[in-house]
Amino acid sequence: MHEFRTRAAVHDNEDPLKHFRERFVLTDAELIYLDGNSLGRMPKQATEIARRLTEQQWGDRLIRSWGEGWYDLPQRLGAKIANLIGAQPDEVLVTDSTSVNFFKLAIAALQARPDRSVIVSEQTNFPSDLYLLQGCAQLLTGKRIESVSSKDGITIPPEQIEANLTRDTALLTLSHTAFKSGFVHDMARLTKAAHQVGALSLWDLSHSVGALQIDLNGCNADLAVGCCYKYLNGGPGAPAFMYVRKDLQDQLTSPIWGWFGQSRPFDFDLDYKPAAGLARFLAGTPPIFSLAMVEPGLDLLIEAGMDHVRRKSVQQTEFLIEMIDERLKPLGVEISSPREAHQRGSHVSIRHPNALQIDRALIEEMNVIPDFRTPDNIRLGIAPLYTTYVELVEGVERIAKVIEERRYERYSNLADAVT
Amino acid sequence: MHEFRTRAAVHDNEDPLKHFRERFVLTDAELIYLDGNSLGRMPKQATEIARRLTEQQWGDRLIRSWGEGWYDLPQRLGAKIANLIGAQPDEVLVTDSTSVNFFKLAIAALQARPDRSVIVSEQTNFPSDLYLLQGCAQLLTGKRIESVSSKDGITIPPEQIEANLTRDTALLTLSHTAFKSGFVHDMARLTKAAHQVGALSLWDLSHSVGALQIDLNGCNADLAVGCCYKYLNGGPGAPAFMYVRKDLQDQLTSPIWGWFGQSRPFDFDLDYKPAAGLARFLAGTPPIFSLAMVEPGLDLLIEAGMDHVRRKSVQQTEFLIEMIDERLKPLGVEISSPREAHQRGSHVSIRHPNALQIDRALIEEMNVIPDFRTPDNIRLGIAPLYTTYVELVEGVERIAKVIEERRYERYSNLADAVT
Repeated sequence: MHEFRTRAAVHDNEDPLKHFRERFVLTDAELIYLDGNSLGRMPKQATEIARRLTEQQWGDRLIRSWGEGWYDLPQRLGAKIANLIGAQPDEVLVTDSTSVNFFKLAIAALQARPDRSVIVSEQTNFPSDLYLLQGCAQLLTGKRIESVSSKDGITIPPEQIEANLTRDTALLTLSHTAFKSGFVHDMARLTKAAHQVGALSLWDLSHSVGALQIDLNGCNADLAVGCCYKYLNGGPGAPAFMYVRKDLQDQLTSPIWGWFGQSRPFDFDLDYKPAAGLARFLAGTPPIFSLAMVEPGLDLLIEAGMDHVRRKSVQQTEFLIEMIDERLKPLGVEISSPREAHQRGSHVSIRHPNALQIDRALIEEMNVIPDFRTPDNIRLGIAPLYTTYVELVEGVERIAKVIEERRYERYSNLADAVT
Repeated sequence: MHEFRTRAAVHDNEDPLKHFRERFVLTDAELIYLDGNSLGRMPKQATEIARRLTEQQWGDRLIRSWGEGWYDLPQRLGAKIANLIGAQPDEVLVTDSTSVNFFKLAIAALQARPDRSVIVSEQTNFPSDLYLLQGCAQLLTGKRIESVSSKDGITIPPEQIEANLTRDTALLTLSHTAFKSGFVHDMARLTKAAHQVGALSLWDLSHSVGALQIDLNGCNADLAVGCCYKYLNGGPGAPAFMYVRKDLQDQLTSPIWGWFGQSRPFDFDLDYKPAAGLARFLAGTPPIFSLAMVEPGLDLLIEAGMDHVRRKSVQQTEFLIEMIDERLKPLGVEISSPREAHQRGSHVSIRHPNALQIDRALIEEMNVIPDFRTPDNIRLGIAPLYTTYVELVEGVERIAKVIEERRYERYSNLADAVT
């Protein structure tokens, strides 16, 4: 690993994004945090946002703050995210959770294709999305889900999805980047295939946004949702975003007719009239503290540029895979992410029969935080704005130490995962 | 008004809750804030919560914080709210917005009464709830809404509601306290009436919780939702609470099958299995910042005791009504809230043909913040934890001044309300 250390030092030194690391709070210099794909680190600017929210806004301006920047937060933050995902500023909103937004858009899509009965998805999709689809099918009678399965557990070739699209398909919905393996679907090709049979497409961008370039408009994608607490560094449980292509906005109806989606909420009319454009997908009053925390992370990504972020991410995942092959493979570790960079997001998954115990030993004894995913996966997440090459070398060394010294055996009582 | 000032000083001095005022941030001693029924003031403790969230939790402990207090926040805060509304600790959750929670419970109730087609509500209900019901009726075919209208625009006698309940009623849903007039429905009687025809009841407690005593269990109420940013002082757009009576929890199904409502979310099974009990009504990852901010306000109310809070609220609304009759009635102001204390929540609404302009003049020139409600209402909200009697006298004097000096005429261009 000496050679990797030398290379890492050079890479870090030459890294055009290296100064972004100091824009994040780093309280423990020894911690190897490889979980930015689950909860991104806190931008330093978030402290200032919290101060303004308490001292200046809620504490002092009180209700007046609604007219001084709170009302348009869903739209304003949406416009910034649009910048990262190839959308127009008025095509994205930040509101509610990913699950609630996914539900709203899935129902809207199914209601827009009333004569079609099938939802096509696949089994490496984030399970919450599959659950939500099952709920939609329960709610709207006569709908069923076809979940394509992966043959190698890692990749799903586009033709396998395409083979399931028919004139009875109402909706194709996929996680753009798979939460477990990091496999990335071909959005352009699959959206086109959905359109060829007259179906709508709904993309979950949670593991893509802020990690790689996305071109929703370029792919002519219909609908998308995504999470703001991973690579966007928006804070724990941050409200999520939703995208609806401009020409579809006035054709679709949200199932949740809350007052923030009404055309004139403060008229307090008795009948719901949906707002023009995307605002109709707002529901209740949005959680301002959590919403406002989303902004600093977006500003950092926009400043860095997604092309630079992706370039570093690819270099870092390649570097990490090379180290895993050399240092961890002999210890029984397998790579369970695609080896082709264009098929891979910004995390690398590894497998080991004792993954759960290794993960625990890393957290408890080695000051490394990766992310266990049942049954035998450990995800190593790379957030190019703050992950260094030297951290990756050190992280791999600590994983090797846990396995070589059989430290994971102390955790053999662990029956289940809780993180 | 001299006599009112003297009495106010005595009341404030004798007020058993007077020390709670200093537990809130008060940056402007001259501001008369009568909008705690829209956005409650910030408890001082909220600053400490924000500090912990940024410095200790997100900033330092990162993902580990989920296991150190984040996961069970919906339940932990719910148990505190249960204390304020006559429910058991495991009957209340804090999550999502009032609108989203209302939607979940309304759909669940309608699906639990599949053979019945009618939702009974009334027209002084908060319009967002009516919109949501319209959305539910659009989603589930064959449902219709019967909205009872108020004859005097202020009250709705229970027998008028009861007359609309039949064996075809699936759900009776009402705002317990009306957002405009402050009229309070008889929860015990109307819940009983709903049960007599076999219907479920869903109460919106947004304008009641933290303002008056509620006994959901005592009334055998089925379902309830409520807002945390008004009298609970939980912060702007704070996540809302939902209540489901214990024996109903495992019978009802949320329409939004997100992973936080799954029995074992981290097993990542492909099929949704609802969690036991109320947790099945969770959907996506909750917004932790906004959620955590809810706690300090709850602690203050529990410490004060709802009996004391309600007693002061009644005394203050009576005092305010007496002043309005004496000082503002001769200036053309009418009271549009019930005069009977047991029928009234914690705000007093007044009417004037120039209400919109008066409201604006109060905010812009007089440092008074009430709340305009179309077409001609101004709500004067009383939050017993921090509203003083002297403030009420001063508030009425400033309203009188705006009308006497015709200051509202400067705002005659105002076509519409935005706050």
